[in-house]
Amino acid sequence: MQSFQVRTPRRNAFVEITQQVQACVASSGVEAGVAVVFVPHTTAGVTINENADPDVVHDLLLTLDRLFPQQVPGYRHAEGNSDSHIKASLMGSSCQVIVAGGGLVLGSWQGIYLCEFDGPRTRQVHVQLLPGARE
Amino acid sequence: MQSFQVRTPRRNAFVEITQQVQACVASSGVEAGVAVVFVPHTTAGVTINENADPDVVHDLLLTLDRLFPQQVPGYRHAEGNSDSHIKASLMGSSCQVIVAGGGLVLGSWQGIYLCEFDGPRTRQVHVQLLPGARE
Amino acid sequence: MQSFQVRTPRRNAFVEITQQVQACVASSGVEAGVAVVFVPHTTAGVTINENADPDVVHDLLLTLDRLFPQQVPGYRHAEGNSDSHIKASLMGSSCQVIVAGGGLVLGSWQGIYLCEFDGPRTRQVHVQLLPGARE
Repeated sequence: MQSFQVRTPRRNAFVEITQQVQACVASSGVEAGVAVVFVPHTTAGVTINENADPDVVHDLLLTLDRLFPQQVPGYRHAEGNSDSHIKASLMGSSCQVIVAGGGLVLGSWQGIYLCEFDGPRTRQVHVQLLPGARE
Repeated sequence: MQSFQVRTPRRNAFVEITQQVQACVASSGVEAGVAVVFVPHTTAGVTINENADPDVVHDLLLTLDRLFPQQVPGYRHAEGNSDSHIKASLMGSSCQVIVAGGGLVLGSWQGIYLCEFDGPRTRQVHVQLLPGARE
Repeated sequence: MQSFQVRTPRRNAFVEITQQVQACVASSGVEAGVAVVFVPHTTAGVTINENADPDVVHDLLLTLDRLFPQQVPGYRHAEGNSDSHIKASLMGSSCQVIVAGGGLVLGSWQGIYLCEFDGPRTRQVHVQLLPGARE
């Protein structure tokens, strides 16, 4: 397992981590298999989405804020970040990317994002490489 | 593959299964890799979220019920559990946790939950261990 | 890694791909482990849900359209498909299914779906088999 840290800038932000994950793949020496990316947090997640037009990330965050406001009648959790927890579960605490030829197999527009929902903070990201079946 | 059963108490409930998954890891003898947790159901899911304050789970369920009520004009599925199906896809039918030193690598506040959305029922959980690449 | 193509019929559609994924498992020769299914797109996803009653898929699509309309005040992304991107992240760009006895371990009602949110298009699906730990 390899790990790295990410500093997030605001309460809600998507920070691209594709390069850091690719570096983990390279240093592992795995040529074919899967890279598992995991965040050990309950108010942050991981997702894969477009990294070409930053307006996509803007609209993703806008949508999540529209549907999951911070204050909702009935919320009991005293820290006031119940919206952060639901967003984290919706994005998920991990993603996986296939590795071939020693590199991540991502589509032309795909990037891997750490999803911050209760920042700014310093977050941890763990990466585990799994070797594929021999073909 | 290992399997265990979980009895769920209500229509909507998060039941923590971290200990059972850890037991699967221990009995597998895998020291480093990934544990894949999978539920073979279409109205239940799996997620990772906070297991310290039970109010977090309360608020997660409240949010899902607010956005996905059981009765919605236009629903065709005759069993009356279309909300259960969408919640299951949003949480996902599986999660993965990195294994290191023979144990699950979870954050301080993270627990693994079976998400019941059409209970009470007895649910199955499957766990498969994947060995990691040698470092 | 194996790949296949899927032609989607409409802007929003779930197309079942269970048979194609099973064929990848069979041709890999892997008896026990996990099949990772990945779509290299940012306006399509993958999910596992009921494949018995087509009304379930109808109701899933209806729910996603109700919560994520195509036009929302404040959206900046010029392509007019911000709803497609958020739906893709909610379903996820990958899923994983345990393999045992050379076959997918799915529940009685589970099927694997490519989720199209900006079709009709021809989409790619990648499948990577991961061998399980020896028991």
